[in-house]
Amino acid sequence: MKHALSVTREADFAAWYQSVITEADLAEESGVRGCMVIRPWGYGIWERIQRLLDDRIKATGHENCYFPLFIPLSYFEKEAEHVEGFAKEMAVVTHHRLVADGKGGLMPDPTAKLEEPLVVRPTSETVIGTAFSRWVQSWRDLPVLINQWANVVRWEMRTRMFLRTTEFLWQEGHTAHASADEAVEETLRMLEVYREFSETCLGVHVIAGEKPENERFPGAVSTYSIEAMMQDGKALQAGTSHFLGTNFAHAQNIKFQNSAGEFELANTTSWGVSTRMIGGVIMVHGDDDGLRVPPAIAPWQVVIVPMLRDQPEDASIVEYCRSLQKELAAQSALGEPVRALLDLKSAKAATKRWGWVKKGAPIVIEVGGRDVAGGNVSVIRRDRLYREDGKLDSAVMPRGDLVAGVAQTLADIQATLLAQSTERLRAQIVPVDDFATVEAHFADSVKNPGWVDVRWSKPTGAALDTVVERLKALKLTIRNAPLGQTHGDHGPCIFTGEPAVERILVGRAY
Amino acid sequence: MKHALSVTREADFAAWYQSVITEADLAEESGVRGCMVIRPWGYGIWERIQRLLDDRIKATGHENCYFPLFIPLSYFEKEAEHVEGFAKEMAVVTHHRLVADGKGGLMPDPTAKLEEPLVVRPTSETVIGTAFSRWVQSWRDLPVLINQWANVVRWEMRTRMFLRTTEFLWQEGHTAHASADEAVEETLRMLEVYREFSETCLGVHVIAGEKPENERFPGAVSTYSIEAMMQDGKALQAGTSHFLGTNFAHAQNIKFQNSAGEFELANTTSWGVSTRMIGGVIMVHGDDDGLRVPPAIAPWQVVIVPMLRDQPEDASIVEYCRSLQKELAAQSALGEPVRALLDLKSAKAATKRWGWVKKGAPIVIEVGGRDVAGGNVSVIRRDRLYREDGKLDSAVMPRGDLVAGVAQTLADIQATLLAQSTERLRAQIVPVDDFATVEAHFADSVKNPGWVDVRWSKPTGAALDTVVERLKALKLTIRNAPLGQTHGDHGPCIFTGEPAVERILVGRAY
Repeated sequence: MKHALSVTREADFAAWYQSVITEADLAEESGVRGCMVIRPWGYGIWERIQRLLDDRIKATGHENCYFPLFIPLSYFEKEAEHVEGFAKEMAVVTHHRLVADGKGGLMPDPTAKLEEPLVVRPTSETVIGTAFSRWVQSWRDLPVLINQWANVVRWEMRTRMFLRTTEFLWQEGHTAHASADEAVEETLRMLEVYREFSETCLGVHVIAGEKPENERFPGAVSTYSIEAMMQDGKALQAGTSHFLGTNFAHAQNIKFQNSAGEFELANTTSWGVSTRMIGGVIMVHGDDDGLRVPPAIAPWQVVIVPMLRDQPEDASIVEYCRSLQKELAAQSALGEPVRALLDLKSAKAATKRWGWVKKGAPIVIEVGGRDVAGGNVSVIRRDRLYREDGKLDSAVMPRGDLVAGVAQTLADIQATLLAQSTERLRAQIVPVDDFATVEAHFADSVKNPGWVDVRWSKPTGAALDTVVERLKALKLTIRNAPLGQTHGDHGPCIFTGEPAVERILVGRAY
Repeated sequence: MKHALSVTREADFAAWYQSVITEADLAEESGVRGCMVIRPWGYGIWERIQRLLDDRIKATGHENCYFPLFIPLSYFEKEAEHVEGFAKEMAVVTHHRLVADGKGGLMPDPTAKLEEPLVVRPTSETVIGTAFSRWVQSWRDLPVLINQWANVVRWEMRTRMFLRTTEFLWQEGHTAHASADEAVEETLRMLEVYREFSETCLGVHVIAGEKPENERFPGAVSTYSIEAMMQDGKALQAGTSHFLGTNFAHAQNIKFQNSAGEFELANTTSWGVSTRMIGGVIMVHGDDDGLRVPPAIAPWQVVIVPMLRDQPEDASIVEYCRSLQKELAAQSALGEPVRALLDLKSAKAATKRWGWVKKGAPIVIEVGGRDVAGGNVSVIRRDRLYREDGKLDSAVMPRGDLVAGVAQTLADIQATLLAQSTERLRAQIVPVDDFATVEAHFADSVKNPGWVDVRWSKPTGAALDTVVERLKALKLTIRNAPLGQTHGDHGPCIFTGEPAVERILVGRAY
C-alpha cells in the first residue's frame, strides 16, 4: 500500500517523526540554533492544548500571572547553595546594546556591559519564590495558587523538534501552602489534572506515578510524572509535578505567621507541561500518512475541499460548501462548536486533500459537482483512511446525514485514538520477575517494544546509583512507580534481592 | 469626599497612576531592572484583551505562529544596512553556561562563549521575514497572513509600569502581499481592527491616523496609529500598523514569481499592540478610588462578597451566594457568559468590598443575613460609586431583578465608560489656526489639557525637523493625521505658512 509519507514508522522511526513534522507543516528549523519556528498548524494544536488545559488549571483554583523573562545571576547563586544538581546550561545576557564593530558588522557594545548578568529563565522557581516571599505573610495569605504560560530556555546540546529544543513553550504552576499535607495533595491534584487532560484531550493514555530519587527535580522532595508510550515502545515523560517541601521556601524565605502567631516555612509545589506534548501526540497518533490529530485539539476538525475545475459550476460548488461549513459550525461536538474550515486556497483538490490527510484533520470532506447535484458529500475519516482493499475510504453520504452525525463521528474518532493508545500501553507493559529476563527482553526491542513492570526495594543513595548504572548499560531508565498500587505482591527486588516495596516501570525513553 | 486611594488624579497624576497599579493588584516591581510582575488581576485583563483581539485577528484571516526568542546578530547586520534609524538598545546573549567564579558565586563560563551573539527579539521582522523568504515562492503563496503573541525586550533607560518596560507582552502581525495596494489595504484593515477593538472592548475612544514621517517605524513607508487621550490630556499611542512597502522584502529576499513568471518583491506589513494598552485603560478609566475595568475585559464582571460574622447563619448566606453565583454565570452579557466570582477569602467583608472597588470590578454585590431573609442583594456599580450626597451608592434590590438585569447593567457600564472617554476626547481637542495660539494654549496645560487640531503643509526632511524642534521646545509631538479628512479647509500651515494639505493632532504624550 502506498502512503503519503516517503518514510514509514517501521523503516526509520526517527526519520518518520521528522517527516511528519515537515509534511504536516507543524514546525521547521528557524536558522537559530536549537530553536524552531512553530507553524500555524503546530501552533494551532498548542493553542488548543493551552485553552483546554488552562480551563482545568483555572477550575482547580489557580490564577495566571506573568513573571520576568530575565532572572538576575544572584538569584541562581542563592539556589545553587541550596540545591544540589542545579543545572547550569543557560543563556546569559551580558550586554544591553549593539554597536558597529568597525568592520561593517555589529557587536555587543563593550561600554554597555551589565553589572550583573541576567539569565534567560530556564524555569521560574527563583523569581516566583522571591515574589511569594513578598506575598506571603500570614496563614490567611495561603494557599497561593498561580500559573504562568511562558517561553523558557535551556541550552541543550542535542535538540529535536518539540521533544527537546533550546527555547520551548510551557506552563509552570507554582503554589505555596501552610502544610506539607496540603502541598502533597496539590502536587497529586495537578498530576491527576495532567493525566485526565492527556487522556480526554490528547487521546494519550498515560501512567501517573512517582519518579525515583535520581530523577527528581533538583531540590524536590518528590517528583511525579505522567509517562506516555510512543509507537516505538519508548517512553515520553509528558508532564511533571513536584512536591518541593520547604526546600525552596528556605532558600527564598517564604515564611508565614500561623494562627498561633509563630513563623513557619511554607511548603511549595511546581508542575509543568510543555510543547513537548506535541511530540508525544505525533509519536502516539501519527501513521505512515502523517499526523492524526485528536478532534479535541484539532485546530480544524472538519475541512471542506471543493473540487473546482475552472468551470461555471464552480460557483455553485463553493456556495454549497459555504452553507455546509455554516451548518457544521452550528453543531456542537466534544462540548464546543465544531471547527469547520472551507479551504479555498488556489491548489488542486487532490493536493489539498492529501495536505489535510498529512496534517491529520479528523474529517476531510470533498465536494464536487456530482455531490452538489445529489445533495451529497464525500467523507474521509482520518482514523480509518483505507478500505480493506487498500483503497482510500472516501464515503459518499447525504449531506444531512453528515451534519447530523458530525458530533458523534468526532467523538468516535477521539475515542478510537485513545483506545488505540490504551491498547498499545496495555499490550506492551510486561511484568518481569528477574533482571536476567529484563536483559533478554530488551535485547530484542523490535520483538519486545515497550516497558517492563518489575518489583523493587526502592534503594537510595549508592545502592540506587548501582541500579541506575545497570539499567543505563541497557539504555534503560526507571520511568515511574505507578500510583494506586496495592501492596499485595512482596516478592524480591529484581535489583537487590531484598523484599520489594513497590513495582516500577522500566523502559527506553525520549 | 474621602476616596479609596491616598493620592488623587488632580494632586499628582503620575503618583496616582502608580497607586492604582499597586492598590488594584495589577503589577509590581520584580527585582529585575525594568521588568514587572504582572499579578493575576492585571494578567487577567491581558488575557481578556488577548482573547477578544485574537478572535478579531483570526476573523480577518490571520493564523498564529511562534518564532524564536533569539535572533542571531547577523540578521540585524543585514537590517542595519537597509534600515536607517535602526535602534540598537537590545539584550544580547553571549554565553550559554554559568560556572562557579571561585568566590562562592557564579559567572558566565568563559569557555561557553557563543560564536555568534544572540539578540533577544525587540520585534520579529528579521526572523519572520527570513521565514517568509522560504515560504513565498509563487503568487499562489500570497498573501501570507500571520500573527504572534510573544514577549519582546527593548532596553529602556527609563521605565514605567505597563507604559514602557524592558520586557513587554504583545502581538505582532506580519503579512506579505503580491501588491502594494493589497498591503496598504491590510495595514488599514488592521488599524481599523485596533480602533474598533479599543472602542468596543476597552471602552477607549481613539483617533486613527497616519504618523508623520519622523515618527515612522524605521524602514516603513507609512506608519499608522491609534491615539488615546488620557485623563491628564496626554496622548498614548495605543497601537500601530505599518506599511513596509518592499523595504523589508528587499533586505530579506522575499520574492515571488508572478502569474507571468516574473520575479517580484513582496510588499509587507506589520502591526502590533502590547501590554501598554493596560496603562491606557488605567489612565482613561481610573478614578480616585482605583481602576474601573470595562466589563468586556474584566476578568470578573460581578463579584459577590458574603458578609459573614462567624455566626450559624453564615452557612445560609454562603449557600444563597453560591446559588446566586450560578444564576449569574448562566446569564449572557456582551455575547459571553457572565463572569461571576464568589469571594470566600478569609478577610473582612468591608476590606473585600474596597479591594474590589479598587480593582474596578464592574459590579460588586454584598449579601448579609438581612438580604438573605428578604431575598435581596446590595449592589454597587463601579461606574457610579457615590450618591449625590457623597455616600457610597449601595442599592438594595430583589435578587431576581439583579439577575434579570445583569446583562443590561454590564452593557450600560461598558457604554458609560466609552461615552466618558468619547466626551473627554471631543471636549479636549481644540482647533487652532496659528502657532502663537498653540504656544499660549499649552502654556497653561491645567486649564487646557488635551490636544490641538492644526493645519499643516506636511513638510519633509529638514523642514519637518524644524517643525519637530519647535514642538519639542513646548514638549509637544505630532500625534497623527486623522484618517477620513475632507480636504475642504485649505488655510495656511501653522508652521510653514504654505497652503496646508491636511490637519494633524498635536499634544503631549506618554
